[in-house]
Amino acid sequence: MIKITLPDGSVKEFEKNTTPMEVAKSISEGLARNVISANFNGNTVETKTPLTTDGPLTLYTWNNPEGKKAFWHSSAHLLAQAILFFHPDAKLTIGPAIENGFYYDVDFGEQGISESDFKNIEDKMLDFARQKFEFEMREVSKADALAYYEEKGNEYKVELIKNLTDGDITFCDHSDFTDLCRGGHVPNTGIIKAVKIMSVAGAYWRGDENKPQLTRVYGISFPKQKELKEYLELLEEAKKRDHRKLGKELELFAFSAKVGQGLPLWLPKGAALRERLENFLKKAQKKAGYEMVISPHIGQKELYVTSGHYAKYGEDSFQPIHTPKENEEFLLKPMNCPHHCEIYNTKPYSYKDLPKRFAEFGTVYRYEQSGELHGLTRVRGFTQDDAHIFCTPEQLNEEFNAVIDIVLYVFSALGFEDFTTQISLRDPEDKEKYIGSDENWEKAENAIMRSAKEKGLKTIIEYGEAAFYGPKLDFMVKDVLGRSWQLGTIQVDYNLPERFDLTYKGSDNQLHRPVMIHRAPFGSMERFIAILIEHTGGNFPLWLTPEQVILLPISEKYENYTKKVLHLLENSEIRALVDDRNEKVGRKIRDAEMNKIPFMLIIGENEEKEGTVSVRKHSEGDLGSFTVEEFADIIQNEIDKTLQQF
Amino acid sequence: MIKITLPDGSVKEFEKNTTPMEVAKSISEGLARNVISANFNGNTVETKTPLTTDGPLTLYTWNNPEGKKAFWHSSAHLLAQAILFFHPDAKLTIGPAIENGFYYDVDFGEQGISESDFKNIEDKMLDFARQKFEFEMREVSKADALAYYEEKGNEYKVELIKNLTDGDITFCDHSDFTDLCRGGHVPNTGIIKAVKIMSVAGAYWRGDENKPQLTRVYGISFPKQKELKEYLELLEEAKKRDHRKLGKELELFAFSAKVGQGLPLWLPKGAALRERLENFLKKAQKKAGYEMVISPHIGQKELYVTSGHYAKYGEDSFQPIHTPKENEEFLLKPMNCPHHCEIYNTKPYSYKDLPKRFAEFGTVYRYEQSGELHGLTRVRGFTQDDAHIFCTPEQLNEEFNAVIDIVLYVFSALGFEDFTTQISLRDPEDKEKYIGSDENWEKAENAIMRSAKEKGLKTIIEYGEAAFYGPKLDFMVKDVLGRSWQLGTIQVDYNLPERFDLTYKGSDNQLHRPVMIHRAPFGSMERFIAILIEHTGGNFPLWLTPEQVILLPISEKYENYTKKVLHLLENSEIRALVDDRNEKVGRKIRDAEMNKIPFMLIIGENEEKEGTVSVRKHSEGDLGSFTVEEFADIIQNEIDKTLQQF
Repeated sequence: MIKITLPDGSVKEFEKNTTPMEVAKSISEGLARNVISANFNGNTVETKTPLTTDGPLTLYTWNNPEGKKAFWHSSAHLLAQAILFFHPDAKLTIGPAIENGFYYDVDFGEQGISESDFKNIEDKMLDFARQKFEFEMREVSKADALAYYEEKGNEYKVELIKNLTDGDITFCDHSDFTDLCRGGHVPNTGIIKAVKIMSVAGAYWRGDENKPQLTRVYGISFPKQKELKEYLELLEEAKKRDHRKLGKELELFAFSAKVGQGLPLWLPKGAALRERLENFLKKAQKKAGYEMVISPHIGQKELYVTSGHYAKYGEDSFQPIHTPKENEEFLLKPMNCPHHCEIYNTKPYSYKDLPKRFAEFGTVYRYEQSGELHGLTRVRGFTQDDAHIFCTPEQLNEEFNAVIDIVLYVFSALGFEDFTTQISLRDPEDKEKYIGSDENWEKAENAIMRSAKEKGLKTIIEYGEAAFYGPKLDFMVKDVLGRSWQLGTIQVDYNLPERFDLTYKGSDNQLHRPVMIHRAPFGSMERFIAILIEHTGGNFPLWLTPEQVILLPISEKYENYTKKVLHLLENSEIRALVDDRNEKVGRKIRDAEMNKIPFMLIIGENEEKEGTVSVRKHSEGDLGSFTVEEFADIIQNEIDKTLQQF
Repeated sequence: MIKITLPDGSVKEFEKNTTPMEVAKSISEGLARNVISANFNGNTVETKTPLTTDGPLTLYTWNNPEGKKAFWHSSAHLLAQAILFFHPDAKLTIGPAIENGFYYDVDFGEQGISESDFKNIEDKMLDFARQKFEFEMREVSKADALAYYEEKGNEYKVELIKNLTDGDITFCDHSDFTDLCRGGHVPNTGIIKAVKIMSVAGAYWRGDENKPQLTRVYGISFPKQKELKEYLELLEEAKKRDHRKLGKELELFAFSAKVGQGLPLWLPKGAALRERLENFLKKAQKKAGYEMVISPHIGQKELYVTSGHYAKYGEDSFQPIHTPKENEEFLLKPMNCPHHCEIYNTKPYSYKDLPKRFAEFGTVYRYEQSGELHGLTRVRGFTQDDAHIFCTPEQLNEEFNAVIDIVLYVFSALGFEDFTTQISLRDPEDKEKYIGSDENWEKAENAIMRSAKEKGLKTIIEYGEAAFYGPKLDFMVKDVLGRSWQLGTIQVDYNLPERFDLTYKGSDNQLHRPVMIHRAPFGSMERFIAILIEHTGGNFPLWLTPEQVILLPISEKYENYTKKVLHLLENSEIRALVDDRNEKVGRKIRDAEMNKIPFMLIIGENEEKEGTVSVRKHSEGDLGSFTVEEFADIIQNEIDKTLQQF
């Protein structure tokens, strides 16, 4: 008999050589139908692998990332099998599961494949899948493995095998297809019900441009046809909501080849939207006792030597700025914290003066390779909604809680209702990667875990994901398309106060070190706005949107009354504009809908006579007739609903 | 007879060999009493130099900078004479008039002078002055001049004379004192009635640290004792108002050796004050149709090659920032205009879309040698209240006028009532210094002169003071100490639109070049705030000051009522704080006065009982009892008075 520990901590006894699938069946038939793969004693195993020792077992279904991985990895085998069916001479290289689906890099020789081939491949994959092939893992000696692929003339697999250790090489067979493989497959191919080849792209062998170019074939698969359909619709929707596309259409931001890649230019509507977001946070921060400061965008190299950033990032960053005389060296600031430490250091503090909370919308510059840049989500210059809190160790927990409150307020006001948090701790196996003492790390890590618990946050803990100077709490929000984004971050730091020799006088009249909290609810204005654009599809919350109201006079006869309405709206601080083009009102409504303006006010003879406006709401239609004052109230109420007081 | 042209254009005939003093007498006895020096045919002459040809003559009095220069140059002779009286072996070098007074660099040999010697020197100078010595200029040959100073063993004067041309060397005698001198003296020393030795400092011969160190003796002199007294009082007041001193005391800004010289850190109170100033201008700009944009603080080198800045300033600027990979080069932005041109270029415009007015509080970085840095007035990073207007040539005049309106609004709201303007045009003799065509320069220069005239500005025109890309209108304000500061600037630019290929489609359906206006009413936030601090002595206008009100409870018994008052004030958006220290109210008042807080509210038994506050105004005293609402009105009225709507 062996003892199997299940994820809920329960321990069950089974006969030796029981398989994970049999364990699943012993729990419920439903689970057995859905189980895709398994992890035993920390290793991925097949569902039919006989278990021979005691140990912990986790069973994965489609709803676990690990389950999806096995599903897509198995699908990659089918893809390779189908490719060889049509192209027997093609040489397979590697074919992993990825975040969404899988790919296989293939050397097709002279003749490649194109979109017109996708349908045939998909059909053949489904044809194979329906035959419910099982995957059989077997160990092979290095010599046999090499012989197998040398005979096939596949130099890629040969190269892979040469780098592996004898005794550690497994092949996987299904039907007449064999691949070098580490395992982790679905019980049989029958559960793969829907497949789609997404695209092909060029990819160098081992990512090295001096090596042969291969064809990367991307695919995705699902247990149900319906899920594939939904996924493709989601992709279509994501394309429509792409912030790069909407940012251009709504004239929010632009890039210029002359200014440089990854350096956004905020156009008037985007800059105004960003300012409204900043003012919204400033207001909440003011109430929470923050003080704004302003620091320069460069600092002497010595500043970053002191902070430790130079040793850690210097070589991979924008290089130092030299002066024409006096031989000085400056760096573009990659973070605001060293500057804020120096601001703290401009005067002495007593414990009664703390906490000090210095906030700055500080623009920082970090080098990214051009291939990594992407719209506003990956840039070379971005503005952090940064703040640093300097407090006593006794105040840490309360301050951390208050920061969580602000982050939650921001998410709720912006409509991000679905989020999780991640606590990033040190890698306990690799402590040299981090600066600072063991004792300080433990204090900081405990403070974060305590606050997360007190605030009832759904958290996962990740070891090895901390910043080099301290542990952190990150917020991951889900957008309406179900995609996860890392947004706000809160970090505890016992190290910079040490490095900058920050002190305060305690009630004992001795000097002590303050603790430092780094935090940014938005993360960066650029990235946050990008995500907000995609989350809302450009239909921003009313309080934030560039134009709240558009006036649509039916003809130029109503020019004067339209101007009067515009003036009244402006007095109520409502952002309005007029479409006075010589166009039919139907056309004006269509254009306003396309420009995502929340309210349209139609103005004609009746409205002028009765001193009213006819209100249409974006994507909802006619709301009826109102006076301007009544309409202003509608707007204000809608804003108050989303933007409750902090 | 000779024909003398006077500054008013009138031409008078005089006998040959008439002196400037005689011309003055022919105009009025008063003028003759006050005339100090003269310029004939473009050259400085003595008042007793016989005029032998036709030509224009200008007579200078103490009220002209040229008059002061002659006065102080003559005083430097007296200083040298007095020094030689006490130190016969001292070697004189050079002794020019400067902006305020004069100095003489002297090699005292072993024994120098100190502050305790000043009185004796001053007395001796006045003693000489009272003897009404006249200055006699005489030409000497180079050989004689050299012989004279070689005999005295004065290697400095020998070096100076060696660099002069024979026939161009003059000595000046008065009493028993002789000096190498170019002329320009008072009629006699009798008008020098007050002298003061200000300080001594070390100075290298010819400013070269490898050459001997001399003693620089600074002095100043006046025609009246009263004027000296006023000047010294002004200096004392300026020292008290020094923005570096007040900035520290009021905790507005600081510098950090680690961050770097000339890179200000804005502390919470200073950052808040600056934000209020920015919001004030933003509001006026919004009404005037400006749109805010945001651009990065770096740009590719190519951007500045396109703009022409790189060719002009590249070598003397912060050097290029290199990337660790991909071999790119960026520069810290020294100006916002190239970025704004690229923003303009993100879409096509028709003439109906213009003017576009892009505004940004854009932080720019310019290298200055560390010796040139001074508080906030001369820094290496500063934030311009920048805007660029892109308009049609037909709109230029109206736009320029509207910009002048904003500048005048800013000055009036900030209490700078005394200002002049300078129109800076090209140096017509040295056109190669400037970029752009003759035709465009003429258009731009005419537009500025027309607007200045239409707005009735007091202007002076300076040739050769234009920016390299276009002419400009600069505003010079006088502060309460009578010192002149260059603040706002408006510049017309026909060149950048050319270099960035900016276009709009005219009513003729053809592409045209827009005209560009650069403008910054404050100039830079740093410099403006520095001047504002010195102008107001830290007593900022009520709408701007960090803390408007301080609550002074008489004892802790009134803590609750004080909190209630504070809350009411905050609801009225009044910036208030509480002095709840356990101190006598007299002490609290004294401290509040020192911290320049405009209003003090004293809170005790009567106030709590009657629901009022006792109001004291900074440096004015008791105003009486008011309810909080009444007091809020007092504040609002005072703000409305200075800050009328734009």
